[in-house]
Amino acid sequence: MASEKEIKREKFLSVFPKIVEELNASLLAYGMPKEACDWYAHSLNYNTPGGKLNRGLSVVDTYTILSNKTIDQLSQEEYEKVAILGWCIELLQAYFLVADDMMDKSITRRGQPCWYKVPEVGDIAINDAFMLEAAIYKLLKSHFRSEKYYIDVTELFHEVTFQTELGQLMDLITAPEDKVDLSKFTLKKHSFIVTFKTAYYSFYLPVALAMYVAGITDEKDLNQAKDVLIPLGEYFQIQDDYLDCFGTPEQIGKIGTDIQDNKCSWVINKALELASAEQRKTLDENYGRKDSTSEAKCRKIFNDLKIDQLYEQYEESIAKELKLKISQVDESRGFKADVLTAFLNKVYKRSK
Amino acid sequence: MASEKEIKREKFLSVFPKIVEELNASLLAYGMPKEACDWYAHSLNYNTPGGKLNRGLSVVDTYTILSNKTIDQLSQEEYEKVAILGWCIELLQAYFLVADDMMDKSITRRGQPCWYKVPEVGDIAINDAFMLEAAIYKLLKSHFRSEKYYIDVTELFHEVTFQTELGQLMDLITAPEDKVDLSKFTLKKHSFIVTFKTAYYSFYLPVALAMYVAGITDEKDLNQAKDVLIPLGEYFQIQDDYLDCFGTPEQIGKIGTDIQDNKCSWVINKALELASAEQRKTLDENYGRKDSTSEAKCRKIFNDLKIDQLYEQYEESIAKELKLKISQVDESRGFKADVLTAFLNKVYKRSK
Repeated sequence: MASEKEIKREKFLSVFPKIVEELNASLLAYGMPKEACDWYAHSLNYNTPGGKLNRGLSVVDTYTILSNKTIDQLSQEEYEKVAILGWCIELLQAYFLVADDMMDKSITRRGQPCWYKVPEVGDIAINDAFMLEAAIYKLLKSHFRSEKYYIDVTELFHEVTFQTELGQLMDLITAPEDKVDLSKFTLKKHSFIVTFKTAYYSFYLPVALAMYVAGITDEKDLNQAKDVLIPLGEYFQIQDDYLDCFGTPEQIGKIGTDIQDNKCSWVINKALELASAEQRKTLDENYGRKDSTSEAKCRKIFNDLKIDQLYEQYEESIAKELKLKISQVDESRGFKADVLTAFLNKVYKRSK
Repeated sequence: MASEKEIKREKFLSVFPKIVEELNASLLAYGMPKEACDWYAHSLNYNTPGGKLNRGLSVVDTYTILSNKTIDQLSQEEYEKVAILGWCIELLQAYFLVADDMMDKSITRRGQPCWYKVPEVGDIAINDAFMLEAAIYKLLKSHFRSEKYYIDVTELFHEVTFQTELGQLMDLITAPEDKVDLSKFTLKKHSFIVTFKTAYYSFYLPVALAMYVAGITDEKDLNQAKDVLIPLGEYFQIQDDYLDCFGTPEQIGKIGTDIQDNKCSWVINKALELASAEQRKTLDENYGRKDSTSEAKCRKIFNDLKIDQLYEQYEESIAKELKLKISQVDESRGFKADVLTAFLNKVYKRSK
C-alpha cells in the first residue's frame, strides 16, 4: 500500500503534465513549429520532475498547515494553485541545475545523463535553462494575475533567483575545481554561499509562497519565517557537508567527493580554523587533489581535529536555538509555528 | 565637433556607471564579499555598453517624439527614467549575447574576446548571463515600482525574453552549424525565427517601453506600433541576410560568413524556393561547408536565380506596405506615426 507520503507525491506529480500542456499550448498560440514545441516539452519533462520534489511539496504542506485543512479538504482549484507554485520552485531548481551541471562539467543527474550531455542537446542547454526559468513567469501570469499578491510573488521569484545566482557566483570564484587556494576559504564565506545558494530558494521560498496564498502576508510574519528558515537552510547544508565526509555510503547513498572536488565545505572551513601550521601545510598540499592518498591525508586531519564531534556540538546548539525561536513565534496574525517545526523535523538528525 | 548623434550617445552612456553603482550597492547591502561585487561590476561593464546601443537609444528617441520635447527639454529625472529602460534592453541583449556566443562557439564580440573566452571566466559566463538578466528586474523594481505601468513593463520584459528564447531555440534546432539539412529550411520558418529572435526585442520593445512612460498605453496603440515594428524588424533582418551575401566588405565592415556557417538566412531560403532539382542538389552538397569552393558554387546559384533582384523587389514592396500602414496610424489617443517613420528611415535602403 502506498504511504501517505507517496500519495502526496503522486498527487503533486499529476499536476505537472497539465503544466507542460499549458506551456505547449502557449507556444502553439505563437505559431511555433511542432519540432520546437516538442523540444520544449522534452526539456520540461526531462529536467523538472525526477528529483525528490521536497521544495515543491513543501509549498503544499505549508499551505495545509496554515489553512488548517488536510490535502483532501482542499478544493481541486485550491490544490492546483499551491501545487503550481510548488512546480514553479521545481522549475527554478531545474533552471539552476541544468546550468550548474554545465559549469561543474557533471556527467549524471538523478540517474540519467545531465541535459547538456544528451547528444542532440549540447550547448543548446543554455537556452533551454533560460526557457525553464521563463516558464515560471508564464505560469504566474496565467494563474495569479488577478490575485492581489501577484506582484509580490513575481518580485519574490526575481529576488530569490538573484540571491541564488549570487551564491553560485561566490561558490564558483571561491572554489574553482581546477585551482586549489585554501586561503580563499573562510567559515564566513561558507555561510554566505550556502545561505544564498541554497537556503533562500529551498527553505524560505516555499514557505513564503504558501503564506501569500493563505493571505498571511504581513512583513512581520514573513520575517518570522525567514528568521528561522534561513539559519535552518544553512544548518541543512552544513549537515550535507558533514555527511559527505563522515556519512557511510549506505547512509548517504553515494560516495562523498567534496575533498577531491575542492568543495568549499563546512568541514574544510572548520578544519582550517583549527589547523596547526603543519596540518595547514598538509591540507594546502592535498585538498582538492584527484587521488585517494591525498584524500586520506585530509581525512586524517579532519579526524585528528575531531570535526565530527564539533559538528555534533554545532547541530545540538543550532537545533536548540531554532526550537527556542520557534517557541517564541507570534501566531496572532495567523502564522503558525508548526510550519517551522515541520521543516526542522525534516532536517534534525537526518542521516541521508 | 561632436555630431548630434554622438552627443545623444554620450549622454546615454553617462547613465550606465550610475546603474553599475546602484547594482553594486545592492550586492553590498546583501553582505556580498568584495571579490563578488567586483566580478559583477566587471561583467556588467564588459558585456553591456560597447555595442551600437541602437535599442537603448531608441527608447529615448521614441520618448522625445511622443512627449513633443527635445532631449534638452527633459528633466534630468525624466531623462534618466527612459534611459534606464533603454539600458534594461541593453542588459537583455547582453544576457542573450553572452549565451549566444557560448552556443555558437564565437571568438570575438565587439572587438574584444567573448566573455566566456576571458581566461578566468570560462563557463562561469552562464551564471553571469543569468545575473545580467536579473539586473533588469532589480532596476525595474527600484525605479518603477510606484508607477502604474510597473507590472505591464515587467510582464513585457518577461514576454519578450521568452519570445526571443523561442526564436533562438528554433534557430538552433533548424540550423546547427555542424549538421547541414536544407530540408529543414523554409521561408516560413525563417520568418518565424527572425520575428521572434530579433524583431520583438529590437523593434517592438523599445517603442512599447517609451509608450508606457509617455502614458500611451491603450492596447490599440500598442498594436498599432507592433503591426508596423514586427514586419519592420523582419525586413531589417532580411536586409541583414541580403547584405551578408551581396554586400561588399567595404559596405558591411566584415566578410559575410552565412553560407559557410549554414545560416538559415533569407537568401538560402529564397533560393530553395526557386531552385531546379539540379541546383537544389548543388546547394545540398555545398551549403554550410567550410570551404570557399563550396561557397562559390552556392553564390553562383544565388546569382543565377537573381536573388539580389528579388531582394530589391521585396524591399520596395515591404517599404511601400509599411509606409501605407504608417500613413493610416490613428493619432487620436496620442500615439505618433513619426515614431514609426523614424524607425523605417533607419532601415530603408541602409547599406551597413
